[in-house]
Amino acid sequence: MSEWKERARPARLERRYEFPDYETLREFLDRVAELSEQEGLYPDMGFGRTYLNVTIHADEDAAQLGERQRRFAERMDALLPAAARPM
Amino acid sequence: MSEWKERARPARLERRYEFPDYETLREFLDRVAELSEQEGLYPDMGFGRTYLNVTIHADEDAAQLGERQRRFAERMDALLPAAARPM
Repeated sequence: MSEWKERARPARLERRYEFPDYETLREFLDRVAELSEQEGLYPDMGFGRTYLNVTIHADEDAAQLGERQRRFAERMDALLPAAARPM
Repeated sequence: MSEWKERARPARLERRYEFPDYETLREFLDRVAELSEQEGLYPDMGFGRTYLNVTIHADEDAAQLGERQRRFAERMDALLPAAARPM
């Protein structure tokens, strides 16, 4: 089951990730940066030592989320290091 | 003149950085991550494709900012890639 929440006004996907340590967080940030460059999609990211909050907005000219945003969210989840996955 | 703003309740330093492109932003994030590990200080960071907002909080048991926080802010500024410096 996806942990992404869909919100309105403005349309966006949000999710929080937690990490056992800073090293694991950084590894994830590096992977997501590569994904951003591949997809040309740059979410808003807020992080501290062991957490990351992500907000994926709709395209600028679109009122609604599209397939592009949902695929990005799925691909992000797939990049999560094993150390940060729930047991 | 420093662009850091000192704020109260809770005591914190805040600054926004802007970047010409995502590559320059990532380079800066990498440098700051190394500084965080050296100093054992992990600010709250919020970023998108070409901006970064930073909040440095006081130590957990302290009501006020200390020398540690101010030094971190200065050292962050010194890590800014040339491409992101005002002309």
